[in-house]
Amino acid sequence: MELPLSALRELVARALDEDLGRGDLTTDACVDPRLEGHAVLAAREPMVLAGVDVVREVYRQVDADVRIDVKHRDGSRLAPDTMIATLSGRSASLLKGERVALNFAQRMCGVATIARAHVDALPKGSKTRITDTRKTTPGLRLLERYAVRCGGAHNHRNDLSSAVLIKDNHIAACGGVTEAISRAKAQAPHTARITCEVDRMEQIEPAIAAGADVVMLDNFDDRTLGEAVKLIAGRALTEVSGGVTLQRIPIIAAAGIDIISVGALTHSAPARDLALDWIA
Amino acid sequence: MELPLSALRELVARALDEDLGRGDLTTDACVDPRLEGHAVLAAREPMVLAGVDVVREVYRQVDADVRIDVKHRDGSRLAPDTMIATLSGRSASLLKGERVALNFAQRMCGVATIARAHVDALPKGSKTRITDTRKTTPGLRLLERYAVRCGGAHNHRNDLSSAVLIKDNHIAACGGVTEAISRAKAQAPHTARITCEVDRMEQIEPAIAAGADVVMLDNFDDRTLGEAVKLIAGRALTEVSGGVTLQRIPIIAAAGIDIISVGALTHSAPARDLALDWIA
Amino acid sequence: MELPLSALRELVARALDEDLGRGDLTTDACVDPRLEGHAVLAAREPMVLAGVDVVREVYRQVDADVRIDVKHRDGSRLAPDTMIATLSGRSASLLKGERVALNFAQRMCGVATIARAHVDALPKGSKTRITDTRKTTPGLRLLERYAVRCGGAHNHRNDLSSAVLIKDNHIAACGGVTEAISRAKAQAPHTARITCEVDRMEQIEPAIAAGADVVMLDNFDDRTLGEAVKLIAGRALTEVSGGVTLQRIPIIAAAGIDIISVGALTHSAPARDLALDWIA
Amino acid sequence: MELPLSALRELVARALDEDLGRGDLTTDACVDPRLEGHAVLAAREPMVLAGVDVVREVYRQVDADVRIDVKHRDGSRLAPDTMIATLSGRSASLLKGERVALNFAQRMCGVATIARAHVDALPKGSKTRITDTRKTTPGLRLLERYAVRCGGAHNHRNDLSSAVLIKDNHIAACGGVTEAISRAKAQAPHTARITCEVDRMEQIEPAIAAGADVVMLDNFDDRTLGEAVKLIAGRALTEVSGGVTLQRIPIIAAAGIDIISVGALTHSAPARDLALDWIA
Amino acid sequence: MELPLSALRELVARALDEDLGRGDLTTDACVDPRLEGHAVLAAREPMVLAGVDVVREVYRQVDADVRIDVKHRDGSRLAPDTMIATLSGRSASLLKGERVALNFAQRMCGVATIARAHVDALPKGSKTRITDTRKTTPGLRLLERYAVRCGGAHNHRNDLSSAVLIKDNHIAACGGVTEAISRAKAQAPHTARITCEVDRMEQIEPAIAAGADVVMLDNFDDRTLGEAVKLIAGRALTEVSGGVTLQRIPIIAAAGIDIISVGALTHSAPARDLALDWIA
Amino acid sequence: MELPLSALRELVARALDEDLGRGDLTTDACVDPRLEGHAVLAAREPMVLAGVDVVREVYRQVDADVRIDVKHRDGSRLAPDTMIATLSGRSASLLKGERVALNFAQRMCGVATIARAHVDALPKGSKTRITDTRKTTPGLRLLERYAVRCGGAHNHRNDLSSAVLIKDNHIAACGGVTEAISRAKAQAPHTARITCEVDRMEQIEPAIAAGADVVMLDNFDDRTLGEAVKLIAGRALTEVSGGVTLQRIPIIAAAGIDIISVGALTHSAPARDLALDWIA
Repeated sequence: MELPLSALRELVARALDEDLGRGDLTTDACVDPRLEGHAVLAAREPMVLAGVDVVREVYRQVDADVRIDVKHRDGSRLAPDTMIATLSGRSASLLKGERVALNFAQRMCGVATIARAHVDALPKGSKTRITDTRKTTPGLRLLERYAVRCGGAHNHRNDLSSAVLIKDNHIAACGGVTEAISRAKAQAPHTARITCEVDRMEQIEPAIAAGADVVMLDNFDDRTLGEAVKLIAGRALTEVSGGVTLQRIPIIAAAGIDIISVGALTHSAPARDLALDWIA
Repeated sequence: MELPLSALRELVARALDEDLGRGDLTTDACVDPRLEGHAVLAAREPMVLAGVDVVREVYRQVDADVRIDVKHRDGSRLAPDTMIATLSGRSASLLKGERVALNFAQRMCGVATIARAHVDALPKGSKTRITDTRKTTPGLRLLERYAVRCGGAHNHRNDLSSAVLIKDNHIAACGGVTEAISRAKAQAPHTARITCEVDRMEQIEPAIAAGADVVMLDNFDDRTLGEAVKLIAGRALTEVSGGVTLQRIPIIAAAGIDIISVGALTHSAPARDLALDWIA
Repeated sequence: MELPLSALRELVARALDEDLGRGDLTTDACVDPRLEGHAVLAAREPMVLAGVDVVREVYRQVDADVRIDVKHRDGSRLAPDTMIATLSGRSASLLKGERVALNFAQRMCGVATIARAHVDALPKGSKTRITDTRKTTPGLRLLERYAVRCGGAHNHRNDLSSAVLIKDNHIAACGGVTEAISRAKAQAPHTARITCEVDRMEQIEPAIAAGADVVMLDNFDDRTLGEAVKLIAGRALTEVSGGVTLQRIPIIAAAGIDIISVGALTHSAPARDLALDWIA
Repeated sequence: MELPLSALRELVARALDEDLGRGDLTTDACVDPRLEGHAVLAAREPMVLAGVDVVREVYRQVDADVRIDVKHRDGSRLAPDTMIATLSGRSASLLKGERVALNFAQRMCGVATIARAHVDALPKGSKTRITDTRKTTPGLRLLERYAVRCGGAHNHRNDLSSAVLIKDNHIAACGGVTEAISRAKAQAPHTARITCEVDRMEQIEPAIAAGADVVMLDNFDDRTLGEAVKLIAGRALTEVSGGVTLQRIPIIAAAGIDIISVGALTHSAPARDLALDWIA
Repeated sequence: MELPLSALRELVARALDEDLGRGDLTTDACVDPRLEGHAVLAAREPMVLAGVDVVREVYRQVDADVRIDVKHRDGSRLAPDTMIATLSGRSASLLKGERVALNFAQRMCGVATIARAHVDALPKGSKTRITDTRKTTPGLRLLERYAVRCGGAHNHRNDLSSAVLIKDNHIAACGGVTEAISRAKAQAPHTARITCEVDRMEQIEPAIAAGADVVMLDNFDDRTLGEAVKLIAGRALTEVSGGVTLQRIPIIAAAGIDIISVGALTHSAPARDLALDWIA
Repeated sequence: MELPLSALRELVARALDEDLGRGDLTTDACVDPRLEGHAVLAAREPMVLAGVDVVREVYRQVDADVRIDVKHRDGSRLAPDTMIATLSGRSASLLKGERVALNFAQRMCGVATIARAHVDALPKGSKTRITDTRKTTPGLRLLERYAVRCGGAHNHRNDLSSAVLIKDNHIAACGGVTEAISRAKAQAPHTARITCEVDRMEQIEPAIAAGADVVMLDNFDDRTLGEAVKLIAGRALTEVSGGVTLQRIPIIAAAGIDIISVGALTHSAPARDLALDWIA
């Protein structure tokens, strides 16, 4: 559940360039550079925490002398008004990094929180896995996938090169499920699983016969989901994607589906309300 | 309302690197590179359009031979199932760029749509301006500010160097509103307006006396807003920030406030549902 | 078997910066910029071709007016003195891009050729797969993996995030094979297969029981390989890594091993002899 | 014999992005981040060492808390199983940086070792200089040239802007050796030497008369080499390039040639076998 | 008056890459890497200091062990032969960073010094402000604007996105001053002031009526300047741009102009003579 | 005398990012994107032209549809009000690229013009060469060295890796001229000339004896210069650096010095006055 620091550096540098790169007119005019201050990073509403290392890296790049004492670990469920961390150092530095640090953290906590909500919607003890999709914010996939994990959910394939996912267009281009899976099996690395999307019951058997590791059921209603699971009978993992709501998750899970992939974990997670509060 | 192409290139290159940079296992295995295809970029739900140039740039970088015929301009209000553009070219190229193009566009349309909703909440003929804030997605501020404009709203300052915004911490560091504004006036470029945040009525007069161009009213309830506007009496622009809901917008506008800045335009805009549909 | 152009651009730009970025003293002094020339990219020795798109991109960046007519496709087996492509355009441009184009192509052909040699060492009709490893040249993994495919071999996992490979240190850190595989299964994306390296027969059964998709046999001699395959009996893929020579490949394949991963495909492939010959 | 750290940083960052940038699935699943470990970087076969600063920089970027104690300096000849350095720190960090560190070092040691073999092939006390060429790995020229020096050989010109090297095409474009050298002398910086390649005896006198600093003898057999050296008689440096083997080096050196440039030092150096061994 | 370190890093890295990136032939050959040295950064002629943080960052990137003790702050007026800072550390490191450090500092001091000369040309107690323009060195705007402030002058808008400046072409494209200003007011962020350039007296009244915050007087002679100021009568700020000389500054200031923008502060500032002197 | 386009792309991209990257508030508000315009790039004062390819690249990146018709070649001497090029295309695009294009060109013409003045100060038929130094603008060395050549002067070594220049500190670190030159000769590439700076007559003979290719005479007055040239007697090139004025150039040249290196060509060249004039 680690964020690689080597990658974080560039993400943070780019964000600082965007907001602070040409200087902070207000702080430079109003705040004596020698003035020291203290602040608290606080959760204003309930949330699952994600992104403390990003906050750390923001301040490391703004001013390596800022000290940060983190009180909670990523993945923690926080009550409103929880103190996440204390920050001490030059007041000017605290002010300059504030917005960038919060912009990262509020989004990451947003993703973690919505991911957690989906995981919590599973029946107790369920082995069904909630995953993200590739519907992430351009440039921030690394952070959003990490936040998904902080929320207790899982990651789907990272990108187009990490695993095979055969969709209707690929099937059409090959002339059928069997041919598409065969080609993928022949060419893809043996370390990558092969998922085949099917939109009707008749495609399932050929997909399994051709060697699909995962059968993704597209637009199966609650009833046919169960039938599909029975037909597959453990010969492949089963995945449901599209049209997933919190309400439907227990039903899908009860049907015995292995994976529920949810674009909304990353494409529509509302930011959580975080703030940097100053200590007088 | 233009997106600078020079900046777009790098944003798109980075996003393609993230998703496609190491190749598309599935498409390379299943789709003959000579196969040609046609697809339609379609709006699946009502939305305000933003980002057609980004879609264009994505495909220009994936395969310059893909042809795109755009049917609607950014800023258009689209009904569900509107055809936004048609795309023709190698099927493999259409597939490889699809997710990145949609990830950009669904977010930009999301921001444009929520911005439009806020603007539409203003009373007819109102001169009040809805603006974004700096609560944008790290790395995507340029695109999100553009989308805000597509939705009919306005931009606030671009970054910490574009204008002065004096908040409570700056005031505290200076020892008072008057001193803070004076220092900012003395140091900031004359091309930048000076906004001073105030949280109680008594701070307004000193702020104006010291030369604030904009008075930002923090935590003023609906009643005191009106009093503040009367007190200011056109001597400065008035801005409300924080705690703004669609419901409260008509009330704030009716109080005569000039600017309502809304973080939610960018920090929590849900993605709009767009798809690339293939034409058989 | 495609190289993503979006990624190729930066690789080529960096290589040109390295060799040509500060100008070409000799060509600028000696060659009239209006002079046109013709050259042939030729194979001087037998090889498997890889990298024609890279040569194209090099010249596109040096001078977009250079015309390249490619006669053979990547993956072709070339006899000595085969004409791979003809190039026409400003002589100065042909000269300036020559070394960078050749430096890329000679390495890629080297990798493709050695990969092909390993594939050709397999018994006729064998289903055993020869793969690369992560022992690639820093910065050029994308190109080297592509060249491996041009040589008829396969790719192993792309990087540390693409699949799970549990080695002795991971096992030691977890306290055993079962625990290591269980943790990996619980945390890794379901799209990634799990490989477990074992160095003695007793570890095989626990690895399979814990759910390893691939068992990598480390330091098994030719005899015990066969026993291991029998023991595994199709319940997992079998991989041999380390100590693989061309001579040993038929033996390993005959033992029924599924995958033979060979670091030497990329870490020690000698460059193939390519040249740009001028046509008077 | 120093590697500029300022340049090293970006090379290492790019390599880490390639292998580790999206995280290490296995280590994150299996290794407790608090677990500390110790490892030894060891030479598995005889080699000349090159690249310890690169290993250091890799770990500095992965985890600045990893401590490295280096036992040998670049340029040292190492016997098999020599301990090059000990590494201590978080086990997870040691694992994450391992492959990138080894990928750099095994290549650099490979180049240094092959360079040393060529230097050692010179007769005792010989003043002949073995040099590299521009046939380096795209993106890694800095490291490979450094490794060449670690092996006791010398560098040729760094790139197209560092010195003049007139080849047959330049001569043809100018209409002759005299004109080509004159133009180069007139235009190139006075700090750059001028090398002129000749492929027959009659070109030598005009080249020297026109002011060539170095005469590069192309395709001269062992006998004519000696004649050429006599003809030149110290009026210019003499260089042999192309078709150089270890066996031929003493003969060329004995002929009195000043410089022997060898593409194989960098384009075909097999990686040396290095490993990171864990200390229980 | 702070330089954002986050932005400085990349500027310095790029400059080091340009000069030192491929190594320092001379120092590596001649200077024992263990040799320690001491040097003084000295002003050879009178100047206003700017850029000590850049010097610091240069050496931090070359060799973090170099110690720098700075004796004067940016903005100080220095007499000839003033010791600006002392540097201690490896002699080789001091030599390697010397030229890059000086190249930055001599330019920044040049800009600060010329800015100071313009500010000093103002009548005592004048409220007129001297500003820079966008006529800066490509890539170095951040540093040059900072140096302008070190010299006591002010910054104009940072870039095309920071404020509105309506010139003759914009007016022509809109059909008139009123329309141009109206459109700009309607679209630009409320935080940006609107400047309108006028080249004759009749344009002033419409510009103010339309809401210009600043009237930029183009080609007004000394007499008409005064008339313009009277006509404007404090309803807008007044700016003079173009054709400004040190001699004319008191006259312009005496006319009551608020802002004098001077391209020469950045486009033609001669470098100041700085040197790194070694202490035996 | 060519600028490598591969390198130019990034320089221009960075400059556009700096000025235009966040959009052009004024042009976007005032200029209809469909409006076409025509403009002339004109020299306002006498100058030597340099940088037309940079202007071309700026507009290629802003809007590839802008057409540029160049009337003069780099290196031409232009009278005031010379039309350098005509530009046609979208008015908005012409406006957006204007400042960046001019900022590059005015500096490059400035350098070319001052270089030309120094070359013109040489006696008719003189073989003395005027060169630049490493005192260039950080990040723009490539362009400034090119402009120096446009002005008829020559380039000195490009950077610390291109040639050897032994200064007093290097001599001190080695214990003497002989040792310093010997080490440099032994280690530097044979393609790089070795320059040794001397500050008194007694150092000259040892420098030549040790093999210096160039003797740089530091602080020699006009009389001793002649003596030094006589002493050296063609055994090495002679260079004068430091304290060079236009007035002194004929004297130095008459003394028979081969190279006069002048930092002022690049560190203090005032920008030349160029403008983009609109055609109604």
